[in-house]
Amino acid sequence: MALIVQKYGGTSVGSIDRINNVAEKIIATQKQGHDVVVVVSAMSGETDRLVQLARDITIAPNPREFDVLLSTGEQVTISLLSIALEEKGYPARSYTGPQVHILTDSAFNKARILDVDNKKIRADLAKGRIVVVAGFQGIDSEGNITTLGRGGSDTTAVALATALEADECQIYTDVDGVYTTDPRVEPYARRLDKICFEEMLEMASLGSKVLQIRSVEFASKYNVKLRVLSSFGEGTGTLIAPEDEIMEQALISGIAFSRDEAKLTVLGVPDKPGIASQILAPVSEANIEVDMIIQNVGADKKTTDFTFTVHRNDYQKGLAILQKTANELGAREVIGDERIVKVSIVGVGMRSHAGIASQMFTALANEGINIQMISTSEIKISVVVDEKYLELAVRTLHSAFGLEKK
Amino acid sequence: MALIVQKYGGTSVGSIDRINNVAEKIIATQKQGHDVVVVVSAMSGETDRLVQLARDITIAPNPREFDVLLSTGEQVTISLLSIALEEKGYPARSYTGPQVHILTDSAFNKARILDVDNKKIRADLAKGRIVVVAGFQGIDSEGNITTLGRGGSDTTAVALATALEADECQIYTDVDGVYTTDPRVEPYARRLDKICFEEMLEMASLGSKVLQIRSVEFASKYNVKLRVLSSFGEGTGTLIAPEDEIMEQALISGIAFSRDEAKLTVLGVPDKPGIASQILAPVSEANIEVDMIIQNVGADKKTTDFTFTVHRNDYQKGLAILQKTANELGAREVIGDERIVKVSIVGVGMRSHAGIASQMFTALANEGINIQMISTSEIKISVVVDEKYLELAVRTLHSAFGLEKK
Repeated sequence: MALIVQKYGGTSVGSIDRINNVAEKIIATQKQGHDVVVVVSAMSGETDRLVQLARDITIAPNPREFDVLLSTGEQVTISLLSIALEEKGYPARSYTGPQVHILTDSAFNKARILDVDNKKIRADLAKGRIVVVAGFQGIDSEGNITTLGRGGSDTTAVALATALEADECQIYTDVDGVYTTDPRVEPYARRLDKICFEEMLEMASLGSKVLQIRSVEFASKYNVKLRVLSSFGEGTGTLIAPEDEIMEQALISGIAFSRDEAKLTVLGVPDKPGIASQILAPVSEANIEVDMIIQNVGADKKTTDFTFTVHRNDYQKGLAILQKTANELGAREVIGDERIVKVSIVGVGMRSHAGIASQMFTALANEGINIQMISTSEIKISVVVDEKYLELAVRTLHSAFGLEKK
Repeated sequence: MALIVQKYGGTSVGSIDRINNVAEKIIATQKQGHDVVVVVSAMSGETDRLVQLARDITIAPNPREFDVLLSTGEQVTISLLSIALEEKGYPARSYTGPQVHILTDSAFNKARILDVDNKKIRADLAKGRIVVVAGFQGIDSEGNITTLGRGGSDTTAVALATALEADECQIYTDVDGVYTTDPRVEPYARRLDKICFEEMLEMASLGSKVLQIRSVEFASKYNVKLRVLSSFGEGTGTLIAPEDEIMEQALISGIAFSRDEAKLTVLGVPDKPGIASQILAPVSEANIEVDMIIQNVGADKKTTDFTFTVHRNDYQKGLAILQKTANELGAREVIGDERIVKVSIVGVGMRSHAGIASQMFTALANEGINIQMISTSEIKISVVVDEKYLELAVRTLHSAFGLEKK
């Protein structure tokens, strides 16, 4: 007998039929002899409906009150799911985040979980009840309702799994696991049976939307085994676990990509110490996140060229800031490109294998894909290419590293 | 400077426009120098929507979980109203029932308020904030969410007014006060400036839907001045206060009526002690409420005829039970009539005036209206008549006691 935390997202509970279907999945788990704690999101569309109500009043609703509003979405789901479970003859108890003291900081709309009180839940489990907890929400030390930001229900599930020392935290979603890459881009993408936390973190931060990155960080930190499964089908999904628990480790686990990139370059900056921070400080002061950074010596060897990437939404704002800085520094020219994408290969296996990078660059070169920027970490290599090459680059690398379905 | 509790019902907050309108009313009150605490219901239609979601799962949802569901309705309203107030530049704080410890018993779906903690609210008022509290909901001693039953927001408002020792509890609704009778039946009905608690209680229990009866009982018990006003218009509404604070007291304050009546009669029951309880016990065991009761000696003087009224919804069930009892008692016959109505005159003035009853009966007789049953209390006289006479009886009495508009 194990203690399982299951999390069902908005699509999985998007209608009464689907809620009944989720109830059956939960009951099946309990019938296998397990204790089950369930975390649910708002029914799909509900959060958008609530947001629209507030937006009809103002574009910038008071953050505290906005959380009071949003948290009702999950509260509706916990009650409906518990009603469905009770109706099928299985004792259930719903709890809002505040009711089980999911203590957070007071950063409304994007609060972080500090602590979870597991007493009530343990008492209910001991009585044979299924416990249904509202995801995405908590309470701060002043008793205010808080929410964790979009996707926060995953984090709630992992936090509960940690507090309850659960054997597994199962994230039910509309896909049946983590894939080697997005199957919409590469039809030969393959579901992974297992992936380690570090790889999953890279995949998530590089654009894979299966899991919210904070929940993976949380799970990794507290060693909670995560499993991604489909709410609609059967199957064992993908297990996300510490590296040492993953038996057979592939060299490369997956190909991630992001379409949200834009590139900014300042040409002919006088080359002197501290130039990088002079260029980047105004950008970060404007709350623009910078991803990849490259600095090269200019053609005249007295100036330098400086390039960095930002989120595409920040492109215009970044361009204006950089233009101003360039004038101040007496740089020659500012150029930019918002039609670029980032493609990355991820795998803990590359740590111990030389030659992975050159294998990647060769594969892309063989298809005539020009690499504009390169960035590497211990377990990933990212390249920036023209956006027209996105699908070709992903498929080329997927094949080059032998990730196809058998 | 006074402390005012204002309550706005579902229609008053039924859209974003109306919520903005309510915000303006609240701000106007605060600008007059008052502290304002606001209680709101769910937006009109929202509770029905939530009920339907549960009904799509089962006709008998688990009561605890049903309250978790329903309580989200008011939570949406408190947040939207607070967002609107903040947007207009007036600091506001919303609280759910549990957040301000509106402690109730554990009778889910129809809980009763036991206590209210006013500390948080007082602290906010001291900071100049407008406090917005969710009506209709509370928390039991175990930390479960409870609801007070339909109309419970009025009770929340009165309970808060009591706990805060407010100067007045204003109930904003879609009518502009308490009328001498329903203006849809009697176009000459007149708004009352003042009415005393006892009269209001009789009016409410006799069918006037302006206020929830429990809230009037509560206000009467704790001497909270109530005022019924329109959310949409101006005007001072109707003040409901202790009898000794109402200066000029009319003989009769209003004409109440109820269309929800049905009559059951058992004829020729052997007349012996305890017969009434033998007849009524099975009825009350079936949870049917009995209103008026009449027992007459039968024509043969050895048997008796026994008549009582029930809610029209309980008529068929009551008839079946009475038929069974009649067989056991050897009664002659059971008859019934579900096309009757009850019309009542209410007024504390009648206590000290003889002849009110005969004035009432004469007025009805002059119009050829046959009285089927009579019941009286200190401050009201009710008669049962054929339903076809309802409007005529109401108008006749309204005129006979001089209640018309001037």
